[in-house]
Amino acid sequence: MSYHFIHIEDPETLSIQQGDDLQCRADEVVIDVAYAGLNRADVLQRMGLYPPPPDASKVMGLEVSGCIKVAGEESGFSVGERVCALVHGGGYATQAVAKAVCTMRTPEGVDDLTAACLPEAFLTVWYNVIVRASLKAGETLLVHGGVSGIGNIAVQLAKSMGCKVIATAGTPEKCSILDRLGADISLNYSASSLTQQCQEHGVMGEVDVVLDMVGGDFEQFNLECLAVDGRIACIGLMRGGQATIDLTQLLMKRATLTGSTLRRLTPSEKARCFEEVEAHMMPLVAAGAMTPLVDRVYDLPDALDAQTYMASGGHAGKLLLKCAS
Amino acid sequence: MSYHFIHIEDPETLSIQQGDDLQCRADEVVIDVAYAGLNRADVLQRMGLYPPPPDASKVMGLEVSGCIKVAGEESGFSVGERVCALVHGGGYATQAVAKAVCTMRTPEGVDDLTAACLPEAFLTVWYNVIVRASLKAGETLLVHGGVSGIGNIAVQLAKSMGCKVIATAGTPEKCSILDRLGADISLNYSASSLTQQCQEHGVMGEVDVVLDMVGGDFEQFNLECLAVDGRIACIGLMRGGQATIDLTQLLMKRATLTGSTLRRLTPSEKARCFEEVEAHMMPLVAAGAMTPLVDRVYDLPDALDAQTYMASGGHAGKLLLKCAS
Repeated sequence: MSYHFIHIEDPETLSIQQGDDLQCRADEVVIDVAYAGLNRADVLQRMGLYPPPPDASKVMGLEVSGCIKVAGEESGFSVGERVCALVHGGGYATQAVAKAVCTMRTPEGVDDLTAACLPEAFLTVWYNVIVRASLKAGETLLVHGGVSGIGNIAVQLAKSMGCKVIATAGTPEKCSILDRLGADISLNYSASSLTQQCQEHGVMGEVDVVLDMVGGDFEQFNLECLAVDGRIACIGLMRGGQATIDLTQLLMKRATLTGSTLRRLTPSEKARCFEEVEAHMMPLVAAGAMTPLVDRVYDLPDALDAQTYMASGGHAGKLLLKCAS
Repeated sequence: MSYHFIHIEDPETLSIQQGDDLQCRADEVVIDVAYAGLNRADVLQRMGLYPPPPDASKVMGLEVSGCIKVAGEESGFSVGERVCALVHGGGYATQAVAKAVCTMRTPEGVDDLTAACLPEAFLTVWYNVIVRASLKAGETLLVHGGVSGIGNIAVQLAKSMGCKVIATAGTPEKCSILDRLGADISLNYSASSLTQQCQEHGVMGEVDVVLDMVGGDFEQFNLECLAVDGRIACIGLMRGGQATIDLTQLLMKRATLTGSTLRRLTPSEKARCFEEVEAHMMPLVAAGAMTPLVDRVYDLPDALDAQTYMASGGHAGKLLLKCAS
């Protein structure tokens, strides 16, 4: 038996290669991959801008869904169970190894395509919005990039908590999607200044938490839109890493600016988040109260096309690779 | 009977005025003031740059020590008890009103002069270093302005917790004081770049918490000196409010930048902090394990001289006004 994976020949060339069946340790599982989720980090990895950690697979791909092929003896899983998982690289393949603590059972009624949208978005949203930024029921959340794979999950989670949700996107079409997702206010950042739009909606200075994947010149707006005791969780820097902010506002509002990259979380931190995600977010999907937004599914050999589309920014929702042969 | 207080005629003229004895509500006390502590906010208030909140006394002064003159019936205090308190303005006077929840008994063996150094510094250090930045035993704290009224208390509290303490000051003489206060490493920011000095001491990237009263161009250094999961608590902006920071570092380090001004805390938040301060910090002073650094004591009518000295930045430790006649 053997498996197939996407190999980076050079930043513009991907090939399919073949290897021996994957093995795993006692606390791991091997998954027959049904679908792999795309993430921006994959594109950066292909371009050589985001080298994987030394102990990670060199194959791209951070999340998969599928079926347990090998269950390590201490994994707690059984062969044949349907799961989705965060993987330490290696998702663009027909088999992938995952830590058992980063693997969740896919509930009945949730298909593999949906399940592949969840691990990275669930962990990112839970860790940043709930753990780091402490969003509470009834508060106001502003989500930048609300139709992204992560953004749409944040919008839906916050709505399920009874929060008021303001979300941004770059086109009127994407704003319509935000409305359908349940956002209370959708803002098109290409149309006019976000400050002006927030003022028109009467929400300037009313935001408790910002989930920020843009950074750069938006950071000062993030601070200005905050309420007293507001928190900004920064998870991406689409508009650049350099930000000039007014610390006076930080002090006067008792604001908190924090950031993280999921990949650098320790295994025990990931494990703790996964338990919480499985308890609090997965049931929402199983009950139909949260439906991840999917844009398009590509076949595994078309990974470069999928990444090119992701890099164009034209997508709304998750991009996936169909990995099962 | 009557009392005396300092009145702001104009930013360069202070006068002593006389008023009727102060009254208080049931949950307040009137204190016969022994000493009042000076704070930078007082100087800003005199200059018209920091208008007091509408419900605050128009008289300068945020902290006092002394003796209970009138005890509101729900205050829990008795006439004659020695106390120190955070006041809502009004400290530059021979009598001041304080909320009972912002008033602490002065332990036996602690004199009124020492007690007047404590309320603002204790609250600020506890709220920012412990509550907001979660400094834990064994971690590394960097304190900017380590010989300031607040800085020296932060140095001593962190040492009492078994933390490693790095503190900055602007002259070799002040650095010597930091050494005597127990700082493990003292850095003279006027001598060479703090980055270089931290590199020489091998502590760049090793700091868990920064207590920052400078802001401005130091903010990027603060971020760079942090360890993973490091926190910056910003409480002052001596070097300006505008800061340009590299959000990439914020993300990679999972750093947190937060700020506050004590005066904007709600009464209930202040009350909660005061309970913790009375339980955890006051005993250190009573036991002689913490001795607030005092620079100079002025008589009440010399408040302008005292503020002029504070504004010069030449002082090391607390400046106080002797208010008792």
